[in-house]
Amino acid sequence: MQITSEALERAIEELARLPGTGRKSAQRMAIHLLKQSDERVLKLADALVQLKKSVQRCSVCGTITDRDPCAICSNAKRQTGVVCVVEEFQDVFIIEKTNEFRGRYHVLGGVISPLENIGPDDIRIKQLLERIGSGDEQIEEVILALNPDAEGEATSYYINKLLLNYDVDVTRIAYGIPMGTELEFIDEATLSRAFASRASF
Amino acid sequence: MQITSEALERAIEELARLPGTGRKSAQRMAIHLLKQSDERVLKLADALVQLKKSVQRCSVCGTITDRDPCAICSNAKRQTGVVCVVEEFQDVFIIEKTNEFRGRYHVLGGVISPLENIGPDDIRIKQLLERIGSGDEQIEEVILALNPDAEGEATSYYINKLLLNYDVDVTRIAYGIPMGTELEFIDEATLSRAFASRASF
Repeated sequence: MQITSEALERAIEELARLPGTGRKSAQRMAIHLLKQSDERVLKLADALVQLKKSVQRCSVCGTITDRDPCAICSNAKRQTGVVCVVEEFQDVFIIEKTNEFRGRYHVLGGVISPLENIGPDDIRIKQLLERIGSGDEQIEEVILALNPDAEGEATSYYINKLLLNYDVDVTRIAYGIPMGTELEFIDEATLSRAFASRASF
Repeated sequence: MQITSEALERAIEELARLPGTGRKSAQRMAIHLLKQSDERVLKLADALVQLKKSVQRCSVCGTITDRDPCAICSNAKRQTGVVCVVEEFQDVFIIEKTNEFRGRYHVLGGVISPLENIGPDDIRIKQLLERIGSGDEQIEEVILALNPDAEGEATSYYINKLLLNYDVDVTRIAYGIPMGTELEFIDEATLSRAFASRASF
C-alpha cells in the first residue's frame, strides 16, 4: 500500500486518538474536513487550542472555567447558603441541565479510594471545610451528590462525619427508583435503598 | 443552565460538527482533550491545519497528495501501462490496501449523473483521454473500477465507448458474489450478474 498524503495520514492518526473514534471513523472525519472550507477547519483547530489555553479551575468551587471565579460562583443571583458537593466538573453540567439547583457547587475532583491510593487529602475536602469555616458564603446546607458506588458512599460518610463539627445541615440527593422505569427492571440494591429511604406520601 | 467555560462550549460545538459525532460524544472528546497534555492537543490542531494546507490534487491522476505528482504517479517501480479508473480518491486507498494492483490510477472525481446535473465534462474524463492520447505513459490497459450502481454503470459504458477510438484494452473489475458469503443472502441483481459473467473453471 502506498500513501499519497502524509498530511492526511497524520490527521487520521491524530483523530483516531479521540475517545470512541476508530481508524475508520477518523478517516471519515479527515475526508469530511478536507471537503470543508479552510475557515471551518481553522475554527475547529482554534477551538481545540483555546480549550487548552483558556480553561482553568475555579479557585472557589473547582469546576472548569475561562475566568476565575467561575460564572456560577460570581453570579450574585445564585443562592450562596447552599453548596452541592460533586465528584467531577462534568457533574456540574449534568446538574445545571436540570435547572433545579440554584446554589453553588464544590467539585472534589475525585473520591476517596484506598485501592487507587486516593486519600482524603488528595481530593478537595480541605477546601470545602475552609469555605464553610471562613463564613464568607454563610453556608447553611451542604448537599452531597456523589455517585452511589462504594467509593462515593464512603466519601459521603467521611465528609458527613467531618461536617458534624460545623454548624451546617448535611443532606444528600435521593437515591431510589428512577422515573419512567418498571420495578421489574430495578436491581435489588436500588430497591432496598428505595424502601429504606421511603418518605410519607 | 449556566455555562462556566465558553472555550469548552465552543470546542464541543466544533467537534459536534464532525460526521458521526453527536453532542454527547463531542463532550466526551472535549473532556478527554482537556485532560491531555498541551502538546498532544496542539499536535491534533496542527494536523488539522496542515491537512488543509498541504493536501492538493495530483495533476496526473487527480488523487489527493502532499506533493505533485503524487507518490504513486512518481513511483518508477509502478507499472505505467495500466490505469485503474475510480470515482473518488478514497477508492485509491481502498484498492491500495489490497496490494493487488501495481499500476497507476485515474480519479474521475464523480460519475455522470443527469439527476444531479453532472455531465461528462464535470468529471475528469477529458484528462483521462489526454493521458492516453499523449502517449507519455504508454497506456495499454484501462481498468474501470466504478461502483456498480446506475451512475457507475452508465459512466463505465460512456468511457468504454469513447475509448473505442484509442488503441487500449478496456477491462472492468469483476462484479459477482462476494467471498465468504452464502448464495442465500445474495440479492438477485448480483446473482444475475454472477451468472452472466461466469468464467471457465
